[in-house]
Amino acid sequence: MPVVLDGRETTSKVMEELTAEVAELVEKGTTPGLALVLTGEDKYSARYVKLKKKRAESIGMYCEFHHLEQTTDEELVALVEKLNEDPNIHGIMVQLPLAKGLDELKAVDAIDPEKDVDGLSPNTLGKVLMGENCYTPAGVEAIMELFKRYDLDVEGKHWLVAGETNFLSKPLAAYLMNKKARVTQAGPKCPHIPELAKSADVISTEMFKKHAITADMVKDGVIIIDNGNNYEGKKVFGDVDPAVLEKASVYTPVPGGTGPMLIAMLLRNTLKAASK
Amino acid sequence: MPVVLDGRETTSKVMEELTAEVAELVEKGTTPGLALVLTGEDKYSARYVKLKKKRAESIGMYCEFHHLEQTTDEELVALVEKLNEDPNIHGIMVQLPLAKGLDELKAVDAIDPEKDVDGLSPNTLGKVLMGENCYTPAGVEAIMELFKRYDLDVEGKHWLVAGETNFLSKPLAAYLMNKKARVTQAGPKCPHIPELAKSADVISTEMFKKHAITADMVKDGVIIIDNGNNYEGKKVFGDVDPAVLEKASVYTPVPGGTGPMLIAMLLRNTLKAASK
Repeated sequence: MPVVLDGRETTSKVMEELTAEVAELVEKGTTPGLALVLTGEDKYSARYVKLKKKRAESIGMYCEFHHLEQTTDEELVALVEKLNEDPNIHGIMVQLPLAKGLDELKAVDAIDPEKDVDGLSPNTLGKVLMGENCYTPAGVEAIMELFKRYDLDVEGKHWLVAGETNFLSKPLAAYLMNKKARVTQAGPKCPHIPELAKSADVISTEMFKKHAITADMVKDGVIIIDNGNNYEGKKVFGDVDPAVLEKASVYTPVPGGTGPMLIAMLLRNTLKAASK
Repeated sequence: MPVVLDGRETTSKVMEELTAEVAELVEKGTTPGLALVLTGEDKYSARYVKLKKKRAESIGMYCEFHHLEQTTDEELVALVEKLNEDPNIHGIMVQLPLAKGLDELKAVDAIDPEKDVDGLSPNTLGKVLMGENCYTPAGVEAIMELFKRYDLDVEGKHWLVAGETNFLSKPLAAYLMNKKARVTQAGPKCPHIPELAKSADVISTEMFKKHAITADMVKDGVIIIDNGNNYEGKKVFGDVDPAVLEKASVYTPVPGGTGPMLIAMLLRNTLKAASK
């Protein structure tokens, strides 16, 4: 039977630990502060950012929610710069994608690397590539935390990173280059995914396609990290066909795998920033 | 017969083009300015930086050479910050490795991304990973320029990047993630290089070991980018055994491949910075 990396249970544990650590820091006189910045009117994003705020407050953090429904690059950058200077704010998260017409690079490049707890700025991503200490993006932290809690080795394995976003797959591949792993990266539409998957010890997917990875593509004993989040009505499906999981030695379920970990990782980075 | 990517000839052409473009810019009132910063007393590095100065001046650029034989992190950062503010300087190159005891990250992180013509700062490397416009490191530019001049496609190929430095192999792999290529990265001592090499369409080596890639490891028609620079006395050898080249469709010779291109790419980035 494969080992299931239980993201919900792990998140509960992490949140418990964070609650204790935040309390300790508050006792010493510092309340960790997180600023969440949302642009535009997308309801799903708004709900997600509100959930982040609720979670931050549930563990005793101070949290500000800045919602710029209609804004400009200049106004957004000015807000980020104000937050950079604010001593009560230790972490800044700008929700991506931004509202249409806004320049993502300008916005994330404005975040002070010391407060870039979501790991979105080019400065942070460069440090991830260099193997330098920094706030790794939440999606990467989530995978690494699951590996740690379940005593799995990152090193020595051949990883296939099937995906190409700036907030997960590319930083994950960059991170792995510093961990004595072999890493192969390919876009989600690469026609060679089947042959690449066949030789991989670990497959991390971010393919935006239900059951894109099928059982014939993988080798026995593979470790599956499914970052898929494909909705059909209210039901959510991963990028990996359930038949794959019978061949896997370890996998993250969808739902309940890496997804639930993301907010906890953001909050942990914020705590780290506040502890400095 | 394989196609030989002639770095010397290509460099001559690029330098000719640059000479004309610099003259044009000077005519318009701007002389491109490059600042070279060297720390410590390593004679090889000093010679190399002096060569960069000579080449910059040979195409009509203004070039400053700052040699801090004995210095501190603070002094080095202060110099970089002064150069960031200097309107006559469009590009700053800090020669790596720094003298022993100095903090490389601090030094390169101080370079204004707009003047980071050698592509060393975390901000630049993050942009390379994101696929954003920036000054790509000279080693990466050299490979891409050779591909362009010899009409080779970067896209659609499976690249093996055998190496792990911050100035070549990691940024190359990061760059390729944005070019519809498949890219596999592994450290030079990875025991799986032979099997990885076997399935690669292009192999870029940075292995610091004479003839580490042998003919039995590669497939027919492979493209070889040999970034090796292994000295035995005054003779220099690549990372790739000469027998490999008989199986290759395209290769860069050592010496005379990517090496000669590096200074020209740095100067071209400086020209770009001055043209802004």
